[in-house]
Order: sequence, then C-alpha cells, then structure tokens
Amino acid sequence: MTDWDRLLAVARADAPADLLLTGGRLVNVFTGELEPVDIAVCGERIAGVGAGYSAECTIDLGGSYVAPGLIDAHVHIESSLCLPSEFASAVVPRGVTTAVIDPHELANVVGSLGVRYMAEASRGLPMDAVVMAPSCVPATPMATAGGAITADDVRELFDQGVVHGLAEVMDFPGVIGNSPATRAKLDALPGRPADGHCPGVTGPALNAYVAAGIGSDHESVTSDEAREKLARGLFLLIREATNARNLDALLGVVTPANNRRVCFCTDDRTPVDLIEEGSIDHMVRRSIERGVEPIDAIRMATLNPSEWLGLGDLGAVAPGRLANLIVFDDLSSPAARRVYHRGREVAVDGRLTASSATLDVVPPADRCAVDAGAIDLAIPATGHVVRVIGSVADQLTTEHLELPAKVIEGCAVADPSRDLLKIVVAERHRGTGNVGLGFIQGFGLNRGAIAGTVAHDHHNLIAIGADDASIRAAIAEVVAMHGGLACMAGEEVLARLAMPVGGLMSDRPIAEVAEGYRRLVDAARGLGSPLADPFMAMSFMGLEVIPKLKLTDRGLVDVERFEPVPLFVDAA
Amino acid sequence: MTDWDRLLAVARADAPADLLLTGGRLVNVFTGELEPVDIAVCGERIAGVGAGYSAECTIDLGGSYVAPGLIDAHVHIESSLCLPSEFASAVVPRGVTTAVIDPHELANVVGSLGVRYMAEASRGLPMDAVVMAPSCVPATPMATAGGAITADDVRELFDQGVVHGLAEVMDFPGVIGNSPATRAKLDALPGRPADGHCPGVTGPALNAYVAAGIGSDHESVTSDEAREKLARGLFLLIREATNARNLDALLGVVTPANNRRVCFCTDDRTPVDLIEEGSIDHMVRRSIERGVEPIDAIRMATLNPSEWLGLGDLGAVAPGRLANLIVFDDLSSPAARRVYHRGREVAVDGRLTASSATLDVVPPADRCAVDAGAIDLAIPATGHVVRVIGSVADQLTTEHLELPAKVIEGCAVADPSRDLLKIVVAERHRGTGNVGLGFIQGFGLNRGAIAGTVAHDHHNLIAIGADDASIRAAIAEVVAMHGGLACMAGEEVLARLAMPVGGLMSDRPIAEVAEGYRRLVDAARGLGSPLADPFMAMSFMGLEVIPKLKLTDRGLVDVERFEPVPLFVDAA
Repeated sequence: MTDWDRLLAVARADAPADLLLTGGRLVNVFTGELEPVDIAVCGERIAGVGAGYSAECTIDLGGSYVAPGLIDAHVHIESSLCLPSEFASAVVPRGVTTAVIDPHELANVVGSLGVRYMAEASRGLPMDAVVMAPSCVPATPMATAGGAITADDVRELFDQGVVHGLAEVMDFPGVIGNSPATRAKLDALPGRPADGHCPGVTGPALNAYVAAGIGSDHESVTSDEAREKLARGLFLLIREATNARNLDALLGVVTPANNRRVCFCTDDRTPVDLIEEGSIDHMVRRSIERGVEPIDAIRMATLNPSEWLGLGDLGAVAPGRLANLIVFDDLSSPAARRVYHRGREVAVDGRLTASSATLDVVPPADRCAVDAGAIDLAIPATGHVVRVIGSVADQLTTEHLELPAKVIEGCAVADPSRDLLKIVVAERHRGTGNVGLGFIQGFGLNRGAIAGTVAHDHHNLIAIGADDASIRAAIAEVVAMHGGLACMAGEEVLARLAMPVGGLMSDRPIAEVAEGYRRLVDAARGLGSPLADPFMAMSFMGLEVIPKLKLTDRGLVDVERFEPVPLFVDAA
Repeated sequence: MTDWDRLLAVARADAPADLLLTGGRLVNVFTGELEPVDIAVCGERIAGVGAGYSAECTIDLGGSYVAPGLIDAHVHIESSLCLPSEFASAVVPRGVTTAVIDPHELANVVGSLGVRYMAEASRGLPMDAVVMAPSCVPATPMATAGGAITADDVRELFDQGVVHGLAEVMDFPGVIGNSPATRAKLDALPGRPADGHCPGVTGPALNAYVAAGIGSDHESVTSDEAREKLARGLFLLIREATNARNLDALLGVVTPANNRRVCFCTDDRTPVDLIEEGSIDHMVRRSIERGVEPIDAIRMATLNPSEWLGLGDLGAVAPGRLANLIVFDDLSSPAARRVYHRGREVAVDGRLTASSATLDVVPPADRCAVDAGAIDLAIPATGHVVRVIGSVADQLTTEHLELPAKVIEGCAVADPSRDLLKIVVAERHRGTGNVGLGFIQGFGLNRGAIAGTVAHDHHNLIAIGADDASIRAAIAEVVAMHGGLACMAGEEVLARLAMPVGGLMSDRPIAEVAEGYRRLVDAARGLGSPLADPFMAMSFMGLEVIPKLKLTDRGLVDVERFEPVPLFVDAA
C-alpha cells in the first residue's frame, strides 16, 4: 500500500485516520469563514476535513479555533544568533511552522556551503524551512567576504533541490540597470519566485525592478511606498524586525480588497526579541489589535505567503496539505495553545514537546583567521582632519563627518571625551591580513571596547573601542572563541558570547544565547553607550551599501559615491 | 541590446515606449481600486505603469477604463466547431485574450497529435492559448476512440513545452480510488496545476479528490456543492456553457472574502452562442448585473485564473506582464471598445483589426472511415422488448426505458408514432466496422434523420432517424464531407455543415459556421424535434460515462452498472 493509497483511503473514510481533531472551529482561509469541522490526519498530511471520520487517536478541541500553522515569509535565521533547531524551539511553540529562510549571512562567510548547511540543519525540525538562494553574495567588491554565490551556484542549488527560489535581490541598481550578473541570477531560476528588496525605489525605477521579474518586497517603511509597490504587483511583505519595525506604519495600507497580496515577515530578530515578543504570531495579534479582521490577519500569515511562493503543501487546512496546525482559544488575540507539525503535536502551552532533532550536520569550519597580536592598530597622522562615521541611533544610515584628529606621538587616536572612538574591520575569512581603520561617533563608550564577527554583509571581525589595548583584547577574545561577540575593558572580559558556527551562530540553547546577548548589551551600555543595542548597531557600520560612510576591511567607503575614500581629508 | 535591456530601459523611462496609453482609469486587480495612470508598452510587454513616460505612439483613452485582457479558465475550442483562429476572431473582440484550452475532443480522435495540432493552430493568434493536457482519453474501454493519451504522453507534451498542466480529470472515481493509470497521469506533472471535474462529489469522496492533488472544479451546479468545494480548497470555476449554465445559481456563493478563489469558464459554447452572447465578457457583465462588485468580477476573469494556474505573465496590468488589455467605457457593464494583445491593437468596437494568422499547420487527417453503404442497419428481432434511451430535454442524463419493439419482417424498426427512433453509432477512427444499434425516445423526428461526427467523447459517427434510408443517407452525407453534421429527409439534404478537421471542426469563418449550425437546428426542428438543439443533444447520447443508458460503437451501455447490455430485454 503506497502513501497515496493510504492517504486516499483515509480521505474516503475507508480507513481510520492516525489523528482526528474534533470539536474545533476551523479558520477556513479559503472562504474567510469559521467552520465547525473535524480534521482527519494521515501521516504528515491532512486527509479529510468535515464529518464522517474515525481515528486511532481522537482529540476533542472543545470549541477551540484551529488554523494553519503560521509562515514567516522572509527571515534570516542567523540573526537569532542560533542554529535552526534553536530558532525553531523559539518560534514553533508560538505557532510558526514554516520559515522561508535566506541564509544570506552564512553564505557571505562560506558561500554555497552555508546554504547547504542551513538547509541540512533545518531537516527534521518541527518546522518546515523553505530555503531561498541568496542572490547578492558578496554585496559589493569593496569588501572581502568569505563566500560568493554565482548564477551557476544558484542553478546548482535549485537543481539539487536545496532552494525554492531566489532570495531578496538587494542589488536593486543591478536589477533596474539589467546588469549581466544580476540578470544571470534571475534567469537561473525561470518561473520561480524572486524575492525583492528595494528600499525607497519608486516610479519608473520601481517599474523596472518589477518588470525584471521580482515578485515581492519587504523594505517598505511608509504607506505611500507600500501602496505603490502593491499597485505595481509586488507582494507586500510587512516586516517587523528587531531593528526595522514597519507593521504599525503599514497596516493602514491594508484593505479587504488588497490584503490577499500582503504577507508578514520578521527578516531579522534577536534571540531576545524572539523569546520575549515572538515572531509572526506577534504580528498577527498586533494586526488584529490595530483593526485587521482576525481571519484576514491569519490569511496574511498562511494562505498568502503560500500563494506568493507557490507553496501548495502549506498555508491552509485542506486535504493533501501538510498537517501544520495551531489551536488557540481567542480569535481576537491568537496565541497557540497547541501546535501540530506534519501531523505530530510539537508544542503545548508555549513549550516544545517534540523531541529535538539530532543535528548530525557538521557546521562550516571556523573562519576566524585573524591574528590579534599582529594587527597594527596605529593610525599614522598623515593629516589633521579625519572622516568620521556618524552613527545615528536606530538607523542603519550614518552621517559622513569631518573632524579634527586627536594626535599623540604622530598617531591619530580615539578621543572618548568627544565620543570619537576607533573602529576596526579585520578580514577574517581568507587570511589576507586586510585591516580597515577609522573613527566613529555615536557609540559613546567611555572606555573599553566591543568586538564581534557579525558585520553585515561580509561578516569580518569588527571592533569599536576607546583605546587600542581594549580593542586588541576584544579582538583576541572573539578570535579565541572562534567567532562571537565580546565586551572588554582592557584585558577584563565584561561579557562574551561564543558563536563558532561561521562566527554568526552559537550552538547553545536560545534561552542561554538570549541571556548572553542581554549581558553583552548591558555591559556595553555600562561602558557608557547610549545605544539600545550597540552590538546590532556595530554590525551595520561595515555595510558598504547603506549610506553614507562605512568601513570595510579595505578602508572607508563613501557609499553615496560608491567608492573608497581615504581616512584623512587633508592627507599630505 | 537584448529584449531585457530594452524593456528595462523603457521601464526606467530611459527610452521611449512603443505605445503609451494615457488618460485611462486602470482597473488595478492587485489593489481592487481604480487608478488614473499611463501604461507604457515595450514590444509585447507592459514596461511601466504610472507617470513620466513618452512613446513613439501615444493614445489618449479620454477617461475610459483599462483592465487586463479576460481569461477563459477552461474551454474546449472544438465545441465552437471552428478552428482556434476563428474561435479567437469571435472572443478576442469581446476582450478574451487568453483561453485555457483542453483539446480533449480532438485528442479522442487523433491522440497527442490533436493536442499538438491545437497548440500549433493557436500560435500567432491575437489570443494566448494555454494548452492543458487531456487526462481522460479515451473515457472508458467501452467505446472505440481514435486516440489515447497515456501518462507518458502527458509527460512528453509537457517536456516539449506543449502543455502547461493537466486538464480536467474527469475520471473522478479513478482519482478517488487512486487507480494506477490516473495516479500516473497526476504524477507525470509534479507541481503543475491539475484541473478537476467532479460533478456532485461531496464529503469524504471530495476530500479524497482534493487530497489526490486536484486544484479546481467547474462542475458545480448548486450553491451547496460550490460552497463545499471552495471550503475544501478547490478553485471554483463557474461555468456558463451553452448546455450547462451555472452562473446565476452559483453567484450567490461568491463573497468578498472568498472571491479570490473564483474564476470564470465557458467549457463548451456553440458558435451561435459565442457570436450572439459572447464568452467570459458576458459572464463579467452578468455577474455585475447580479450584484458582484465590478472590480471583483474583473478579477475573477483576470488575476484569479492567473493565480490558480500560475500564469505570471497574464491577468494583470503590471510591469513585465504581457500587454493584454481591454478598454471600455462603462464599469457597470464592461464591453471592450478596444483590445490589445501583446502590445498590439487587435480589435476595435467589436471587430477584429489584427491580420489573421496564416495557419500553415496541416490539420489531422480525415478519420471518417465509415462505408455508409456497407452498414447493416437491420435489427433482427430476437425478442419483443427493447431497451430504449430516454433522452430528457436539456439534460445529458437519460432514462433507461424498456418498451415493446415494433417488428416488421422479423426486424425491430423505428416507430415515429411513438417517438421511437433508431440510433446508430458507427466507429469511424480505425476502420473496425463496429456499429452499435439501438432505439431512442425524445428526439421527436417525424421523418428523416440527423447524423454527425461529434459524439462525446469517442466522437464516432452518430445518427438518429425515423427510417433506415434517411439514416443511411445522413451517414453517407457526413462521410462525403469527411466529417460534419447533416440533416436529411430520405436522400434530400435539408442542411449540412462540413467539419473536416477531425470531424469536429469546420475550416470556415465562424459566422458561416454559426449560420450553418442554425440551419441544421432549424431543419431538425422542422422534422418535428421539440429539442432546442437536437445536434448537441445527440452528441451526448453516445457518452458512456453519463447515466443511465447510452450507445457506443460496441452497443448499449448501462452506465449505472458500468457494463454493456443487450438491446433486447427478453432475447431468446
């Protein structure tokens, strides 16, 4: 008897189901109505919805609501600083049974290998991971990343069944200008979904971005932007990331007539946020609070992403689809009381009940190839005025400042009295020994230093400090952990978190990682930083595609001119 | 400069468009709103929607509405009795720019060759034909069809780019019971849409049909049936065929919350209906008359079928999609004043303006292999009581009657005084010489006979008449035309229509075909038939899958018992 024979026999009610959920009120995402029906499950799939079924195991839901498991339409698991299994342990009890993942960060460290690793490490979890192929690795030639993904890699990943489509195509100038490399990646997966990323793109440029074959965008921050993108045919993925909270601003755009084109995504969430606030479940509740009809909010987290991405097995409670279900009691504020994944109960009352998958996948090798002792942190004063990265609280963009250098013994040094700190980016992937040096304002450390191996997108070792000794010690501490985050005062370790998986992820439980992360943030703030999250802020100071001034391992980049610039404005 | 370069240059407004439509009000199917925008076209595609464009040719729409070209989600072009080019000439001026076609009828005559022919004959038309692979050819082993389509044929047609998905899987018992042959066809096109056909299937059987991988159905006739199918996840294709008008009955099911899952289709329409009433355009207008919001009605005919079938190039006015557009003046009753197909104006004020495609495709060879003179029409009276097909006006189902035979000179003969006519089905595809003989009530011919080569689904030569001489003459007339329809009184031709393409389609203009068809119907009614359309009624009297009693070239079939039965109830 084949799986098909058995599934259809159960569907026909000719054989007992494995599991029968009775007495529930189904949130029917097709009709937009509540429907009192039984749900018969056979193996991993729903066999029947309706009446007339019997089963080995019957559970009476006693009038609770049942809905499809929630789908996060776009997320970088790496931002949880945890492995997929631990990410799942945080979101699955909240009802997120599918994550559409873009392993872009690990790909920047180890290329296709990182994509394969994230796919492998997501197998056997109580969550379905739909892997998208990172499309812009490396981000630019102005930094040294550890990996690269070409159009051929994309095609190979697809042919091998690793990826489902193309992940956010951040190189929107390349898409709009039809650059051969970007075109080749789009052409690599004909007919497959290509996720977008086009912040602020409007008018004819937006038309070009859409015409090129991009189908969605999650970068809208204003209503006008979201409205235009919807009208031009992009699926609107509303994002509520830790550092980019767009839900409240964009909900006003959503109407009963357009909400079929709206999905939810978290993009990047810290472990602390995932544990304390949640994931897509939070977005559903928040949307309902803000006036969206509950069934519509649930559709945005289920049927809509399934339709956008062509995930016909997911996103609805219907015969033949995977039995990913959430059970909850309050339609006005859905909080999963019970979660089923592929027919198996995997969480009850917010706690994972599924046995953890045994992860026998070898993580990508350590790439923290930096010799802390050998780095020359000195900046010979070849001029009097330096360019300074002016970081702005809660923004990824920076100011491009020009300030007098503080010179001691012929070298420009940090000057904490002016919040003028030294910033260092040390190439860690290839052993080039490249080190970029510069100055930054806004981090407010009175003393000590912070360092880490999370530095979008190249993920070199980045450090910011008030003195060279602390910076060197922080770098050494991070290298000693084979990647991670550290906060130091001189030689004293104030807090640290080892992230040996590509220098991006811990292999520890998410609660422990969250606690470690909280301690790091507290420590950095204890050193005087006014920033809510100095580590996340630091991780964007090396991102050479977001204006205005950034530092890579090759030196300062004037992002507006898209070219390297010297540190001294008035160099001799 | 590649096509992509040019398209994106126009989209960016860096190069002039080929065509710019200004001053229109776009029916935006994504947002459900009207939007005053310009539409810039480059080659076959829309490059930009919005402002800021210039063009070689600008047309001011003066406040008219613009919407995507309409999509017929399921149609057998053969039912128009015309070639695809003539079908298009009828529907394109009405705004139907895409037909999702199931060349099931021709496939029953010549197998895969018929599918290829219909695909080829649809190239270069002012309409996109999306070809689906017929899934149930032949319908059963109880009739002799001319062609067969296996799972391997389906896969080959797909691999060669001929078909997009699997057409209506009418063998619903095979789907529900997971018969190996049906399973093989579903498995042949993994991940592709499989259209359904499951009249009256409900409860666990419906669950099984859906679980098996079917995605739509167009056979609902009652609200309850349609509601259940929608709730279980099937796209509801509302059908308004010549002989199956379901629109009025089903519109009550459609709500703003579920209409995204509803599409329109015509299935089978005679040339007369296509010319007089129209196609999907008629369904849109009728839906609006019956209270559906105009933009929702248009979405059901555009974006929805595009989403159901994954036709990302069609169904919306958006950058990158094919420039299939209709322009009309009255939103409450859309009637295309101007039609664009792939950027080209193809119809104005209901008249085709595009040059007709030159059809250099050789039609399938004549398969009217019947020797009229050699057929033995005599029915030796081996008993006294005969089974009689009791045809019922406006229904495809028949009664299974048992009546005393009229016997003359040892043979059972027609008895027009009791409306007891002789029915003949002569195998015409393979030269087997098979002839099925029987009696039928309900056609009401006082004298003469009608005959034709349209007899679902095997399409053998079928005739009904009041005397053997007329029957033989009608058969001979049809054979002489290499297929078609004829109405005779003795040797006198009252009306006829040659359909040499597979015996199913004329190669003449549709207006001429419609006129010929009208004459045939008038002639048959002139012979006494009370039926609105005796030829269409006759074409279903050989269909051995619709209860209760039918005649094939192998004799009578008791469809309820799904087995052959003898003509005489009391045979010695």
